Amino acid sequence: MDPHILSVPLDKAYRLLNHGPTVLVSARHEGVDNVMATAWACALDFAPPKLTVVLDKSTVTRALIEGSGRFAIQLPTVAQLALTNTVGNRSLRDDPDKLENSGVAFWRAEGDTLPLVAGCSAWLVCRLVPEPHNQQAYDLFIGEVTAAWADERVFRDGHWHFEDADPAWRSIHHIAGGNFYAIGEPMRAPEE
Amino acid sequence: MDPHILSVPLDKAYRLLNHGPTVLVSARHEGVDNVMATAWACALDFAPPKLTVVLDKSTVTRALIEGSGRFAIQLPTVAQLALTNTVGNRSLRDDPDKLENSGVAFWRAEGDTLPLVAGCSAWLVCRLVPEPHNQQAYDLFIGEVTAAWADERVFRDGHWHFEDADPAWRSIHHIAGGNFYAIGEPMRAPEE
Repeated sequence: MDPHILSVPLDKAYRLLNHGPTVLVSARHEGVDNVMATAWACALDFAPPKLTVVLDKSTVTRALIEGSGRFAIQLPTVAQLALTNTVGNRSLRDDPDKLENSGVAFWRAEGDTLPLVAGCSAWLVCRLVPEPHNQQAYDLFIGEVTAAWADERVFRDGHWHFEDADPAWRSIHHIAGGNFYAIGEPMRAPEE
Repeated sequence: MDPHILSVPLDKAYRLLNHGPTVLVSARHEGVDNVMATAWACALDFAPPKLTVVLDKSTVTRALIEGSGRFAIQLPTVAQLALTNTVGNRSLRDDPDKLENSGVAFWRAEGDTLPLVAGCSAWLVCRLVPEPHNQQAYDLFIGEVTAAWADERVFRDGHWHFEDADPAWRSIHHIAGGNFYAIGEPMRAPEE
C-alpha cells in the first residue's frame, strides 16, 4: 500500500465529501470490476457515517453494487480530470476495455478485493444499506461507510490541505458536459 | 424583483447544485419564516428536477417544511460566509430574533410567500415529495424543483461564470466548524 495513504477515523469521514466533490464509484461482483463518475453523491450521517449516491439503471456499476452489496466512493483530483470524464462517459457494456482505455489502475486494501482507484485523494468503502423503494423509484442508494483513507499529501489530521498541496491534488466539481471547477481557496467564518 | 435575477429553465436547474455547494434551506409555515444552512444537499434527477436535502429533527426549518410541504434551496456566496455560518449555528428555537441577528433579508417571488434569501447567487423552489420512511429513518427529504432563478452576474445562459464575476460571488463549500472553501477555477476535460 502506498505509504502516503493513511486511514481516516470514521467520525471524520464525512469531511471527505462535505465540500461536494465529483466522485468515482467503484464496485466488484463475480470477478468483474468497474468504476463510474458522478457528481450526485452526498454525506447523509456522521456516526456511523452514511452517504447517498445516485446510480442510473443503465450503469454496470449499479448492477455490481446490487449484486455484491458493497462499493467505494473516491475523490478524483485535477490530475485525473480526463480519467474522470472518460469513466463517466463510457460504459463497460459498450467498451469491455473501458478500464484500460480510461487509464484506471486499482489498488486493494489488505484482505479485500474491492477495487479502489489509484491516484485519488480519498476513498470511502461502503456497505449498501438496502432500500429497494429508493433504488427503484429514485435511483438513490444509501451506503454506510465502513473504512476510509486519504492521501496525506492533501488530507491529514482530519482536514483538507488543498492550499498547501500541488494544485493537481484539488478536488473537481462537475457542472455539465466536459465542464468542471477545481475547489478554490480556504475561507474561515468569523467566530460566532 | 431585482433585475439581475433571471429565471433558470427547469432542465438546467441541476447545474445550480451540481458542483456541490453549501446551501441555505428556507421555508414558511403559518406565518413563520426560517432559514438554515447545510452542506448535505444534492441533485437527484434531471426532469423533472429533483434534489435531496438532509434536515435534522432538531431544526425549526424541518418542521416548517413538514407543515407546509414546500421549501427553497439557495446558494450563499463568499460575501455571505458569516451569514451562512450564523444561520447554520443558531436555532430560531433559542433565538427568536435569529433572522435579524444573522442579517438575513428575504425577497418573495410574485404571488408567493416563500422566503428567499436576498444576495444569494441562485434559488430553487421545491415541492416536498413526501417519503415518511426516509424522513424518519435518515432525516432525508426529497424535493421536486418547481421554479429556479439565478443572478445573471454569476450564472447565465445555463452556465456558471465564477471566473468572470467578482470573487465575492463564488459559491462556498463547508468542511467543518467555521472552515469553508470557495469554488475555484474552471477546467475543461479533453474531448472524448
